[in-house]
Amino acid sequence: MAATFPARATAQPLQNADELIDSVETFIFDCDGVIWKGDSLIDGVPETLDMLRSRGKRLVFVTNNSTKSRKQYGKKFETLGLSVSEEEIFASSFAAAAYLKSINFPKDKKVYVIGEDGILKELELAGFEYLGGPEDGGKKIELKPGFLMEHDENVGAVVVGFDRYFNYYKIQYGTLCIRENPGCLFIATNRDAVTHLTDAQEWAGGGSMVGALAGSTQREPLVVGKPSTFMMDYLANKFGILKSQICMVGDRLDTDILFGQNGSCKTLLVLSGVTSLSMLQSPNNSIQPDFYTSKISDFLSLKAATV
Amino acid sequence: MAATFPARATAQPLQNADELIDSVETFIFDCDGVIWKGDSLIDGVPETLDMLRSRGKRLVFVTNNSTKSRKQYGKKFETLGLSVSEEEIFASSFAAAAYLKSINFPKDKKVYVIGEDGILKELELAGFEYLGGPEDGGKKIELKPGFLMEHDENVGAVVVGFDRYFNYYKIQYGTLCIRENPGCLFIATNRDAVTHLTDAQEWAGGGSMVGALAGSTQREPLVVGKPSTFMMDYLANKFGILKSQICMVGDRLDTDILFGQNGSCKTLLVLSGVTSLSMLQSPNNSIQPDFYTSKISDFLSLKAATV
Repeated sequence: MAATFPARATAQPLQNADELIDSVETFIFDCDGVIWKGDSLIDGVPETLDMLRSRGKRLVFVTNNSTKSRKQYGKKFETLGLSVSEEEIFASSFAAAAYLKSINFPKDKKVYVIGEDGILKELELAGFEYLGGPEDGGKKIELKPGFLMEHDENVGAVVVGFDRYFNYYKIQYGTLCIRENPGCLFIATNRDAVTHLTDAQEWAGGGSMVGALAGSTQREPLVVGKPSTFMMDYLANKFGILKSQICMVGDRLDTDILFGQNGSCKTLLVLSGVTSLSMLQSPNNSIQPDFYTSKISDFLSLKAATV
Repeated sequence: MAATFPARATAQPLQNADELIDSVETFIFDCDGVIWKGDSLIDGVPETLDMLRSRGKRLVFVTNNSTKSRKQYGKKFETLGLSVSEEEIFASSFAAAAYLKSINFPKDKKVYVIGEDGILKELELAGFEYLGGPEDGGKKIELKPGFLMEHDENVGAVVVGFDRYFNYYKIQYGTLCIRENPGCLFIATNRDAVTHLTDAQEWAGGGSMVGALAGSTQREPLVVGKPSTFMMDYLANKFGILKSQICMVGDRLDTDILFGQNGSCKTLLVLSGVTSLSMLQSPNNSIQPDFYTSKISDFLSLKAATV
């Protein structure tokens, strides 16, 4: 008999992992809070990934973090002893470059970057010319009467991601491009309110840099990271898979689970990251995954129920 | 016969200034684009203000600029040869302090400031303890594993205004206060997309700093500047005037004219600032003042029509 899944109205505890695994072809994993926490691997992850691979499942790792490129992310997996290839990693830095490719962004136009090194690396790999990024972190504006900030009229897109060197120079440069260059795109890697720069506390995320530019341009960005469906559509297209054959696994309701639901995938919330069971079950929460479980290594122990 | 005013549906050119002047008790003037442009006085302003005072009208000057205090603004009027007292000036820096007073903000709580000197000066005059401001402009975050930014748990309000020294330190500090201090207020001096730091171009305004904090806290600020009605209510209360006895004069539809309309005042748009007649009459514009005219000195020439 075909597996039946409960309605989305209330998340169910995962009881039969085999049934879920058999019902999909691809697992998309969020990284922070699912695979690792800060610099520590979460318990049982290597064995779980090995088991899924041995059962022929495609594994994809998606992160809204845009500070690293795919290659730089690959090193993080390697350091933690996980064997994951660059092609399996989809960071929002890569998504920004992939989006520009997908719309045939003209190669004679430039990209202004508010963000860190990962975005620059991915733009370079994709063959786009860029300016801004960390280099503009130390720039100041000297306001004399009549002073005007020049900007490059060939900038056709402004990409905004998390940027710890954010400053007014960048706000004004990006604003000028978006407001004054005809047709200039405003692309956000993500709008996450908070991010995990260190384990010790939550840090203001890419949503703050994007909010600043939205405030000064009165434009809404095109978001390429979660929960927008761009990466999901890209993956489905690239691998030729049906979205109903994907299970999205994450620790955040408003990015990961919403991302999976926006893409009509199956969704599994793990409680090894920022979301607790009481947050999931709070009457204030309207986002219900199909299933929840404590961590992905539960896949190894939750065998078919003997009803 | 009593003066009749046209419906708000379509702005009328001001034809009979005397009738408008006789119908109100108080004129509220926006400054930039109405009184001056950058560092130059607009033609005929001193004579117009003298005429209005001689006819017994109360004059009030309102600005969303929070970088200066009332006193500092007073100097600007003086430099331009205008005799305006501090008590006639209402800058959004003052409004932030006045708002905190109006709600009896506890004196043992502190205010964290993202903004420039004007806000600090007004908070000091109102007797509030503050931290942040320009002093945090040079602060950087060193991200080591386990690093945590400490923040003052006695901060009960974060005030955000235009800040050319905006940086990630300030974003994170303000975010921590708003997210982690129970009941902490999030107050914006204004959400203006652009501001006029120099005559030569438009500069990203306070809306960008406020947007950044809204993005990281997922909270909406309480706005004390235009077009919120706080200053209008404050003025009406302070001077004991009816709002229908006020005419708001400004050069911006979405701040000045909306501010007047939100307060149920009469409204006059002057075309000496950022709004042109074609912008006013564009089908995309939904904000219609009662009247429009080229500049306030038209008050001197537009006498009663001889119908």
